[in-house]
Amino acid sequence: MNEFELIDRLTRSLPGNGNVVIGPGDDCAVLDLGVPDRLILFKTDAVVEGVHFPKATSPEKIGHKALARCLSDIAAMAGTPIAALVTLALPKDFDPEFVSALYSGMNTLARRHDVAIVGGETTTNPERMLISVALLGWAPRGKAVLRSGAEVGDAIFVTGELGGSRAGKHLEFEPRLVEARWLTRNFSVHAMIDLSDGLAGDLRHVLKASRVGAELLSSAIPISLEVRRKFRGQRPVKAQVMAALTDGEDFELLFMVASRDSVPLLDAWKQQFPKLSLKCIGRITANEGVTIKDQHGVRPLTDHGYVHFA
Amino acid sequence: MNEFELIDRLTRSLPGNGNVVIGPGDDCAVLDLGVPDRLILFKTDAVVEGVHFPKATSPEKIGHKALARCLSDIAAMAGTPIAALVTLALPKDFDPEFVSALYSGMNTLARRHDVAIVGGETTTNPERMLISVALLGWAPRGKAVLRSGAEVGDAIFVTGELGGSRAGKHLEFEPRLVEARWLTRNFSVHAMIDLSDGLAGDLRHVLKASRVGAELLSSAIPISLEVRRKFRGQRPVKAQVMAALTDGEDFELLFMVASRDSVPLLDAWKQQFPKLSLKCIGRITANEGVTIKDQHGVRPLTDHGYVHFA
Repeated sequence: MNEFELIDRLTRSLPGNGNVVIGPGDDCAVLDLGVPDRLILFKTDAVVEGVHFPKATSPEKIGHKALARCLSDIAAMAGTPIAALVTLALPKDFDPEFVSALYSGMNTLARRHDVAIVGGETTTNPERMLISVALLGWAPRGKAVLRSGAEVGDAIFVTGELGGSRAGKHLEFEPRLVEARWLTRNFSVHAMIDLSDGLAGDLRHVLKASRVGAELLSSAIPISLEVRRKFRGQRPVKAQVMAALTDGEDFELLFMVASRDSVPLLDAWKQQFPKLSLKCIGRITANEGVTIKDQHGVRPLTDHGYVHFA
Repeated sequence: MNEFELIDRLTRSLPGNGNVVIGPGDDCAVLDLGVPDRLILFKTDAVVEGVHFPKATSPEKIGHKALARCLSDIAAMAGTPIAALVTLALPKDFDPEFVSALYSGMNTLARRHDVAIVGGETTTNPERMLISVALLGWAPRGKAVLRSGAEVGDAIFVTGELGGSRAGKHLEFEPRLVEARWLTRNFSVHAMIDLSDGLAGDLRHVLKASRVGAELLSSAIPISLEVRRKFRGQRPVKAQVMAALTDGEDFELLFMVASRDSVPLLDAWKQQFPKLSLKCIGRITANEGVTIKDQHGVRPLTDHGYVHFA
């Protein structure tokens, strides 16, 4: 039994109850707690020293990232965050000033998005720091955007530029909360996810939940400056595209709208968010799986996110 | 700056917002999310291998304890749990069957209290297992029992028997959810807390929040069978009392009611919960601090929970 089989097996047998609207498998759990016009979003996310950030990372950035990852999941459902609890697991010899600076990074981000930090706990993890954030948010009833709503013919959009996040962005990114809410207020967004594992992998989560496939256009994939710098002067461009699709930790929004909305959306977006790129990178197909089209033709993108070019 | 000074400093500067009814410092955070007749309780709690359970512990018991600790905090506010998210931080070579059994222990307890497990995540903690549970619950508006309501003259009650939990109870205890809700439906409970650090320490949290003191009666402290066995035949009995007050991880309820309610409460409790002891162990005083009374007189219980007998 591998990890994915394990998760499948575990999630099949979890206890539910009448409050659960969406259980495991989307960006957040969705609960009906009896708020007349709202559903509640519930999410946890952990970062671990040496896994999600190097030991030498500045504490402010660690705190920022720990909360920002969770906020990005609320954004992926076009929700509004409310309150967070923070679990800090620390070696016994921790430096209080370091912890204080970590909270400072977290608090600054929390204030910017009106998130209350309502407590948590400090516990011991002798070998390395681990920070787990639990977050509550809300979405208007019927307006939380799920992974399961993509339809054949939909246009696929992505915000920002992809790849190379490990050079710095993964510690500094701004969760796309404002953009996601603007999107759902102004357009019918069929499905959405935030990019944490890389577009090639995260797109598959949407396709699986929606039971559809996708065709991407290689030349439309927005490639970050970091990736372009890294591969400067190298040909072919496909190495850059692959980095953009698989590096991970972009924390941009990937979403689907009806193709007729594409042009009005691009126009309105440019007015609203002139500094943040929005690209139409492909379309949803009836055939399952992902293909990618470039000047040489159409090729499959495999399950592991790598294009095996001929 | 020590750990307590750090926590004080951190909690003073945390961001709040209009949803926060009670922030850090009580058993759970309390939020107003707009449910007409209810407030929402929000709590996280983590257990770490080698800190909260030995490596050789059966996975079912680890899962049980991870969830039960959080449920005990909901009980301490006389709340009802709703839904949990589970963060499993595991070494890379984990055994899927072990994780499956851990979930089995957690799911059994969750079903017994109608708690939905709505997801979570699996991440890497190379050296040891860590399990963090985030829990949502609710209490009727105005009915969540806080730590801050104890009044001079109140009787102090404790459920069950104390001490020696590490012999086994800490992995098997049943959170006192049913008992706590029965209490608040039938009596005016002024303040309540669940006993995690030991009565001597946890009582102080209530006293500090309520700005009062307490006098305990040594002969009334309910001493567990494990403690009585450990100290069998030894005199004086004060070593047993100290173990009961400071061993920790009892996960019983400590609460205060008006003294006039004491006899009716004891009578009704015996009818309702014939198998679970309830003891009146002292009273709330205007003088701050805690004293303990035995056949030799009244002595202070120090800040660290130890009685320095003459």
